[in-house]
Amino acid sequence: MKIIILINCPDQKGIISSVTSFIHSQKGNIVYLDQHVDKSANVFFMRLESDFESIDIEELQKKFDTELATRYQMHWSLHTDMKKPKMALFVSKYNHCLYDILSRFNSGELAVEIPFILSNHPDLKYIADQFAVPFHHVPFNKENRDASEKRQIELLKGYEVDFIVLARYMQIISSSLIDLYPNKIINIHHSFLPAFAGAKPYHAAFERGVKIIGATSHYVTEELDAGPIIEQDVAPVSHMHTIPDFINKGRDLEKIVLSRAVKLHVLRKTMVYNNKTVIFS
Amino acid sequence: MKIIILINCPDQKGIISSVTSFIHSQKGNIVYLDQHVDKSANVFFMRLESDFESIDIEELQKKFDTELATRYQMHWSLHTDMKKPKMALFVSKYNHCLYDILSRFNSGELAVEIPFILSNHPDLKYIADQFAVPFHHVPFNKENRDASEKRQIELLKGYEVDFIVLARYMQIISSSLIDLYPNKIINIHHSFLPAFAGAKPYHAAFERGVKIIGATSHYVTEELDAGPIIEQDVAPVSHMHTIPDFINKGRDLEKIVLSRAVKLHVLRKTMVYNNKTVIFS
Amino acid sequence: MKIIILINCPDQKGIISSVTSFIHSQKGNIVYLDQHVDKSANVFFMRLESDFESIDIEELQKKFDTELATRYQMHWSLHTDMKKPKMALFVSKYNHCLYDILSRFNSGELAVEIPFILSNHPDLKYIADQFAVPFHHVPFNKENRDASEKRQIELLKGYEVDFIVLARYMQIISSSLIDLYPNKIINIHHSFLPAFAGAKPYHAAFERGVKIIGATSHYVTEELDAGPIIEQDVAPVSHMHTIPDFINKGRDLEKIVLSRAVKLHVLRKTMVYNNKTVIFS
Amino acid sequence: MKIIILINCPDQKGIISSVTSFIHSQKGNIVYLDQHVDKSANVFFMRLESDFESIDIEELQKKFDTELATRYQMHWSLHTDMKKPKMALFVSKYNHCLYDILSRFNSGELAVEIPFILSNHPDLKYIADQFAVPFHHVPFNKENRDASEKRQIELLKGYEVDFIVLARYMQIISSSLIDLYPNKIINIHHSFLPAFAGAKPYHAAFERGVKIIGATSHYVTEELDAGPIIEQDVAPVSHMHTIPDFINKGRDLEKIVLSRAVKLHVLRKTMVYNNKTVIFS
Repeated sequence: MKIIILINCPDQKGIISSVTSFIHSQKGNIVYLDQHVDKSANVFFMRLESDFESIDIEELQKKFDTELATRYQMHWSLHTDMKKPKMALFVSKYNHCLYDILSRFNSGELAVEIPFILSNHPDLKYIADQFAVPFHHVPFNKENRDASEKRQIELLKGYEVDFIVLARYMQIISSSLIDLYPNKIINIHHSFLPAFAGAKPYHAAFERGVKIIGATSHYVTEELDAGPIIEQDVAPVSHMHTIPDFINKGRDLEKIVLSRAVKLHVLRKTMVYNNKTVIFS
Repeated sequence: MKIIILINCPDQKGIISSVTSFIHSQKGNIVYLDQHVDKSANVFFMRLESDFESIDIEELQKKFDTELATRYQMHWSLHTDMKKPKMALFVSKYNHCLYDILSRFNSGELAVEIPFILSNHPDLKYIADQFAVPFHHVPFNKENRDASEKRQIELLKGYEVDFIVLARYMQIISSSLIDLYPNKIINIHHSFLPAFAGAKPYHAAFERGVKIIGATSHYVTEELDAGPIIEQDVAPVSHMHTIPDFINKGRDLEKIVLSRAVKLHVLRKTMVYNNKTVIFS
Repeated sequence: MKIIILINCPDQKGIISSVTSFIHSQKGNIVYLDQHVDKSANVFFMRLESDFESIDIEELQKKFDTELATRYQMHWSLHTDMKKPKMALFVSKYNHCLYDILSRFNSGELAVEIPFILSNHPDLKYIADQFAVPFHHVPFNKENRDASEKRQIELLKGYEVDFIVLARYMQIISSSLIDLYPNKIINIHHSFLPAFAGAKPYHAAFERGVKIIGATSHYVTEELDAGPIIEQDVAPVSHMHTIPDFINKGRDLEKIVLSRAVKLHVLRKTMVYNNKTVIFS
Repeated sequence: MKIIILINCPDQKGIISSVTSFIHSQKGNIVYLDQHVDKSANVFFMRLESDFESIDIEELQKKFDTELATRYQMHWSLHTDMKKPKMALFVSKYNHCLYDILSRFNSGELAVEIPFILSNHPDLKYIADQFAVPFHHVPFNKENRDASEKRQIELLKGYEVDFIVLARYMQIISSSLIDLYPNKIINIHHSFLPAFAGAKPYHAAFERGVKIIGATSHYVTEELDAGPIIEQDVAPVSHMHTIPDFINKGRDLEKIVLSRAVKLHVLRKTMVYNNKTVIFS
């Protein structure tokens, strides 16, 4: 069985040695270790992949807690490859990110389950049908706001969703949802953040005359487009490109940047601290 | 003789045909033609490179004015390769952009003259000496502001400078200087504008946790870091990079992005309109 | 109506002026003009987009031939936006490029018709069904070679196919097919050509220890992986990446590089000369 | 004192735990640990940075040998930051890489000493003079071959040079020199290897019609341009670029790719195995 352990704690001498010795003592074989020290914040981060032939997970967790976590004041989590995480997809009217994720899913690129697609519009139901994924149309407007949020949460809990991907979902996410899924809602914003946060970033980029456009995937927090950045990428543009050209070029960026973020999240390679991410290799 | 003509005017039918026929009628051979129409502003742009065996420039200009410019309400300029433009370098304490430009100059990459280097600090005089370029130390502070500006303008006029390159000159340029050199002062800003305008952009980028840093060269206008963008480039960063790492990586970006802008300007491949640039190929 | 004219001919004075005056005389409005001179080969290339309010195409072609083409020894072609080109897709077992193209097609990114998908294996029929495109399984092996080629050509002619896209079709294309579709068969090769031509390029790249992998789209010619290159792109890799990692990363490259080539071809922005492409802007 | 330890050995359980415990037991504080397992070759690699308040290096080495190296069959080396490595620069006639490295050196980017510059031509002596570095002109041709090699080795030994950088040195390096400096001679090749190895790669790239050009830095081995690759980068080109344009664009690539390789080497972040490099982060 493969076990992934994520740790952060105040930095101090001897952590790596203690943790690796512990794994060794439990008959685990360390397959990959990546660590990072944020010197300005004095915080230590580690991601450890180990193979165990057979192991009682609960026992291991208890021992880890007693022997290491308390001593080093660790925040930590343990994950196995026994269960695929459940990912809900939220979309609106743009289909490119949805097509991209479902194609990757069908190609076996993403080790997740996709219990359902939720949209505030009915337009993309046909794609859900194409890929045989349940589709829930939950309209959202000022009037039905509370009812809609309730319905969203009902669906997420009902399907035991682990994390949410906003694949160009053009609607603000409510605080209650963010609180339920802290650092577990991934958004794609169609600009190189922090430039052009908010609505219509391609229009703003065109107006400013930039020579490069970008896309940014990030975890959703209360403040709009200000959450921890997971991944960014860019593409060159020129005076020849119109706003529709920006939008076309941007689609490819959005697809790639979002899918990379989803993969990193699924592989437990992200860790959030101080509104920034550590991305393990 | 090679002649470059730059044009912008309201878009209408027949401009290309009229201009190319005119050149042909004057026994010129069009070597390169690049045009662009900004459809939202309804403006036509053109850059035309032609070879002439022998030509009376003044005569040509007069004819162009009478036969074309008035008729099409053109803003236009004509340049020959007979005279190298004079480029003044303004620097402060960072040496990487200065070294880069002088090395390129010595390698024959830049078809300019460099009459002098000006600095508000004496620190980089040794590099001016290494490359045998005159160095003028013009201190700048609240008290000597007017005198300094006067001295700057005196030097620029004295040397008949055509354009100015701010190679990490860490001092605001005065309005009077900007007015004297409209779209002729090139700055390098060490961020991916419009993100992180103003002071300490690498610190701000680090704070925000971006995954890509950038550099932007632009023409200087009254508003700080808001002039027409000439060129931008980026480099990937990660959680592993500290602010000093950002600064180190950024140096290479700054050098490349500034030198590209200088080359485009020298080759008359830039045209400014609506606070944006058209960059001809 | 929009008319695109592609020209190549021996370079000489006055071509641009003659062509633009001709368009002007026929009441056309030049919307875009891009030209290039290959000085080593002394060949002139031009792509001209014009708007005509109403025009007799045949008449225009005749006049163009008489007044320009003969005089300048032009190879030329004229295209309108009245009819979408018909694109056949050839695939084998990998689904990522097929998914990508069909998704783009459904999103309205590609102005083509897709009359059918052909494969030497039945595996991807389910995707053809998902997107409701006819699927033809034409097995190919030493024994049935001639019959298979005949069947391919029968299908291509029957559907009046204009060009073919090999979306990871893992089978050599026969000479007879190449002769029927000169510079009209687009292949995606999963390496940065000319490095790693032939089979298993990711394995070869891994073996050599490169730090960047690439993908190349090109027109198919008799010589394997040696046709005119349309588009290339690359992605960084490191010692940490295994061959499966290369393959995964490569998939995104392949999709993007192939789709860009298809778009350029559809927009008539490619022109082949001396086994190289001119790619108009 | 900062100590860097580089290790490779057959992969087996418990290595990380043993090494980190050892460092801990010697009162060292691990500042950075990066490891890699090449699963196909079953080899374990590690780079460990540790701080020690005071330490007897020889004693530490002996203990490391006894307690770890023998047991795990390690190839290993230990480096401190007490002594800067001595880097010889070999050049011919192109000045851009030389300017670049000397500028970086003067800016404090490279923690090395540069005892001398060697060239087979006298042309670049003026740059050595500009930067006050000794310059040795060692002509090289068929007739003086043996004498020249002898002189080269004499200089390298006399100055106690640690590694050699070929900054566009257009001359084959002799086997005897390669044997003296295994994985310690860094070359920059002006193509994206393995494409266009050998002479005139920009001409070959132009001929083939590639859309991207590259540069590659690698350790020099007996086989020309076939040594372990340290770093590669690329830049886009188009049909508009001539061979001189390729050469110009390539200069910037060469400078960056070479300087990155030099920095990685100086920071002991490279390790060679099976003619490939592990590049630690």
